[in-house]
Amino acid sequence: MGLSCANDVATPLLDQVKSPDDLKRMDRNALCRLAGELRDETLRIVSETGGHLGSSLGVIELTVALHTIFDAPKDTIIWDVSHQCYPHKILTGRRERMRSLRKKNGLSGFTRRLESAFDPFGAAHSSTSISAGLGFATARDLKGEDGHVVCIIGDGAMSAGMAFEAMNNAGMSNRPLIVILNDNDMSISPSTGALTNHLAEIRKGAEAVAGNLFSNFGFDYRGPLDGHDLDALLAVLGELKSRTGGPVLLHVRTRKGAGYGPAEQAADKYHGVNPFEVTTGIQQKIQAKAPSYTKVFADALIAEAKVDNRIVAITAAMASGTGVDRFAATFPERAFDVGIAEQHAVTFAAGLAASGMKPFCAIYSTFLQRAFDQIVHDVALQQLPVRFAIDRAGLVGADGPTHAGAFDILYLANLPGFTVMAASDEAELVHMVATAAAHDQGPIAFRFPRGEGTGTPLPAQGELLPIGKGRIVEQGSQIALLSFGTRLGECLKARRLLALEGYSVTVADARFAKPLDTALLADLVENHVMLVTVEEGSTGGFGALVLHHLANRGMLDGRCAIRTLTLPDTFIAQASPEDMYEEAKLTARHIAAAARTGAIPVRTSADLRRSARAGQQELPARLHRAEDR
Amino acid sequence: MGLSCANDVATPLLDQVKSPDDLKRMDRNALCRLAGELRDETLRIVSETGGHLGSSLGVIELTVALHTIFDAPKDTIIWDVSHQCYPHKILTGRRERMRSLRKKNGLSGFTRRLESAFDPFGAAHSSTSISAGLGFATARDLKGEDGHVVCIIGDGAMSAGMAFEAMNNAGMSNRPLIVILNDNDMSISPSTGALTNHLAEIRKGAEAVAGNLFSNFGFDYRGPLDGHDLDALLAVLGELKSRTGGPVLLHVRTRKGAGYGPAEQAADKYHGVNPFEVTTGIQQKIQAKAPSYTKVFADALIAEAKVDNRIVAITAAMASGTGVDRFAATFPERAFDVGIAEQHAVTFAAGLAASGMKPFCAIYSTFLQRAFDQIVHDVALQQLPVRFAIDRAGLVGADGPTHAGAFDILYLANLPGFTVMAASDEAELVHMVATAAAHDQGPIAFRFPRGEGTGTPLPAQGELLPIGKGRIVEQGSQIALLSFGTRLGECLKARRLLALEGYSVTVADARFAKPLDTALLADLVENHVMLVTVEEGSTGGFGALVLHHLANRGMLDGRCAIRTLTLPDTFIAQASPEDMYEEAKLTARHIAAAARTGAIPVRTSADLRRSARAGQQELPARLHRAEDR
Repeated sequence: MGLSCANDVATPLLDQVKSPDDLKRMDRNALCRLAGELRDETLRIVSETGGHLGSSLGVIELTVALHTIFDAPKDTIIWDVSHQCYPHKILTGRRERMRSLRKKNGLSGFTRRLESAFDPFGAAHSSTSISAGLGFATARDLKGEDGHVVCIIGDGAMSAGMAFEAMNNAGMSNRPLIVILNDNDMSISPSTGALTNHLAEIRKGAEAVAGNLFSNFGFDYRGPLDGHDLDALLAVLGELKSRTGGPVLLHVRTRKGAGYGPAEQAADKYHGVNPFEVTTGIQQKIQAKAPSYTKVFADALIAEAKVDNRIVAITAAMASGTGVDRFAATFPERAFDVGIAEQHAVTFAAGLAASGMKPFCAIYSTFLQRAFDQIVHDVALQQLPVRFAIDRAGLVGADGPTHAGAFDILYLANLPGFTVMAASDEAELVHMVATAAAHDQGPIAFRFPRGEGTGTPLPAQGELLPIGKGRIVEQGSQIALLSFGTRLGECLKARRLLALEGYSVTVADARFAKPLDTALLADLVENHVMLVTVEEGSTGGFGALVLHHLANRGMLDGRCAIRTLTLPDTFIAQASPEDMYEEAKLTARHIAAAARTGAIPVRTSADLRRSARAGQQELPARLHRAEDR
Repeated sequence: MGLSCANDVATPLLDQVKSPDDLKRMDRNALCRLAGELRDETLRIVSETGGHLGSSLGVIELTVALHTIFDAPKDTIIWDVSHQCYPHKILTGRRERMRSLRKKNGLSGFTRRLESAFDPFGAAHSSTSISAGLGFATARDLKGEDGHVVCIIGDGAMSAGMAFEAMNNAGMSNRPLIVILNDNDMSISPSTGALTNHLAEIRKGAEAVAGNLFSNFGFDYRGPLDGHDLDALLAVLGELKSRTGGPVLLHVRTRKGAGYGPAEQAADKYHGVNPFEVTTGIQQKIQAKAPSYTKVFADALIAEAKVDNRIVAITAAMASGTGVDRFAATFPERAFDVGIAEQHAVTFAAGLAASGMKPFCAIYSTFLQRAFDQIVHDVALQQLPVRFAIDRAGLVGADGPTHAGAFDILYLANLPGFTVMAASDEAELVHMVATAAAHDQGPIAFRFPRGEGTGTPLPAQGELLPIGKGRIVEQGSQIALLSFGTRLGECLKARRLLALEGYSVTVADARFAKPLDTALLADLVENHVMLVTVEEGSTGGFGALVLHHLANRGMLDGRCAIRTLTLPDTFIAQASPEDMYEEAKLTARHIAAAARTGAIPVRTSADLRRSARAGQQELPARLHRAEDR
């Protein structure tokens, strides 16, 4: 199939498009030209900003056709995942702001309700659009309104269970609902699973597969259609617009990266891109000072797997993102990419563990949320030794709040029998992989952030960490900073800041949120006047467990004050990591400030002196001053 | 279809069955008799113990056939949900202990790995079996072992997304795996969804539906077969045992409650039963002292919905359990049972909320875990006013740890923008329904326990509670008990216990875990020497949020000690609710003990007196004594 439109005319039509209304005044030829311009504009913008290129190039014609035929925002258009929403944003009044994409205070890289009335439902995690769309369609019917609801979902996203749950319900409901299956045979990686084969069969010969999956779910199936053929799209969407009756599924075939050679030829590499040179397709190399945590994890796992053939790796359509692709290159039989299917991934891993294997389930923190029940019910309750390698824990930068790994400490460390670690640097990560491989007593998880390591030399071999034991990194006598994870570096910086003011600061690396190192905690609270816990996660996690422990042992007696630094109780919008840490108040400066005074001192320093006296500890003179500020 | 076996012979064959090996020595006629006896025995046992009757009666012949043909535990037999596992337990060496079913220290009502080698994978939540089974099959192949893996899954369970995720992966893997679809057209309630229609079509004429759903997923489809025809089952299972090749799905049609008239005629009422009279089917009525929380919720929601037509109710195959069936009787167009599909339920509700409706999502605490990511990503991030009515919060008795509502406070109250309430009695629940209905600023949840209310008179109309405000129930001056939820009654009892010893005790009902009532907290810590938080939930929830707040405001200065009572860091096995509370240490006695001494005092009373002096508050004489014990 080929692109039906080309951009060979001088006067830019795109300049005339302030809203989708302007498309409705264009004839077929103009729309065709517009599509070409839209492709070029998308390409130009993403070459400057970086971002999600391939998906957006694949839906140029579809986006033009949708906004020509339907009347958004009265009609509801929901983009699943919304990696592919850039052309939609350009046509819906956001063209001028596109260069702020994925930047602080700029446009989101995804659809976002707060950003535009043309974004009726935000997304970023996959496979939510049919559920949400059915909600819109149901509300429309209950309110006696009219208007179309259109959900655009990829074939990769279709493998997630909730898409089937939604189809099952939508097919039964018989409400008018248009689902467009954007079939490019890819998620971020090539699509996998039986559904992929089924779609291939349909593509081979639609007539032969009359009773296809979608008709079985009660959808009126239409297609497959060349998704780059604007005329065909306009015709069929026009027909669907005037159609009455229940849900319909329109199957369109597109090419990820369509119309841009480099992206067509390596669709995975042009899924998300750095800024690049349009003519050559060469992406800017971000100079790495150290190997990424992902690579360190993968190499450490490969090393362990070489000496233990029970080790297997599982991921859910994040093979390259988690390094499972590296593992698969060495152990193809022992690596499993189950597609976008986190729930299945975890229970599949539980079954493997129940059979005596050592499964490493490598899933980003934010996506592992999808499998919370499976973690509780299939893993923790049965005390099965599934290993969770949690990449992208903490703040993630340009992808913003939908991708933040904010809650994994919360939702793992409060489960009975779980062991939960966080790596403070990449050398620690190597040890944690080894520790997890050896740990057969129950589930164990280790978290690590997105991006490159700290440059710490890597050990030749991972060592077994003693379970539930932290370590003192720097010894002091007045203030204790207890870090869980990669904020350890900021704690060390905070120590230097505080040292300039005369404070003696201990810095400890907790390593474990569960089990807690109770001896270390006792040491810290008994020998310091201030303890600050630091973690890149929500409330209810590491700091909370420290507080529970100290409270219930009677150790919150005022002799050592305590502050818990966590991610704040807000969703932090996309920005540079540095800006996000600033907003989260998790920099060395903030840690030092908390150590000095607590978040909001409500007691006078006289009170604190009294408490300190009661504890028979001398309060350092500088601590007085800091509190009186 | 009729039952092919009858129990018309005097000598009990069942007495000869100590393990499934004994079945393999029986001929067809003996197996037929055995099936009849097994049905009678199951009926007799459940009539005495109560439990899950209908599902177990429906799989009598299937269970006999499976254990005749396959060699468990070498072959892996996984019962999905495992409501239907009683005949399996009887045949696998547990007959003598069946009368301890669902009782303290007795047999679990579900399959359980710790209980028997014949239970390779425990269950209770639905739709996990194919994922786990594929894990077993994969491990088998990697280890170069043989052995069959058989998963038995109901048509109701098949509607959950993870079952599709698993089929998608299994169909692609092409590993030998036997999935038996136990199609009785029911979950707890009648099945719903397009899949139900599809199965009905297949049942009507298998030949006509050649390209059915399961073949589309790459399964070799066999059936449909009469699941009560033992001969047919033995034949087809024998054939599947010797079959080579990839995954196969055997579709068997069964009747829930088969062979027992009352259960066949009202399958939903005999899904889970109280002890009953076998001849009449009349179940023991448990005398209720007060209406159930579920009924109070439903009636309150109906009252609100009568004056606000934007209110709709959504549940996921828990219509009777959540009272959504009552709501549906009044508002059939505004009630939605989406089937076992919690993920879809929540995002569907989010779509409704985004369209201006007021969705109440009524789901048990334990099942809502399935939708954690949807709660974070689709609801909280978008600040959509979805109302979560969380039934079965806390300990649930005979259903045991798989059904405990332990984590909802944890996984909701730490999310930005969420409002989280817990009802301390049924009158409070009425107010919370009204409060949630009126709250349009973002997501809001209210939790309440399983079972009957406290007998508190119900208000004629729900009142709007001030958001984030608790209430003092009893005023005292030394010890403060701060309850979140229905342990309030135990706190009041603890107050009376403590009063006998001379303590003056304040009891407060927090009502909100989020936002916290910071003024109330300040009042409690400033005017008491001991604060005990009490909640029927895990660590990381209400108590943790109280601790975070007090720590970061500098209010943990030792003048008021604090203890947090939560569910313990274990999964509590099934028992009576009273015994479970005892084990959880959440009774009045335990609350009083915590108030006196803290969980494990590590400070001497001299230390505590010092702290108290520093805080310039007089420590009551009795408190000294208690601490010295």
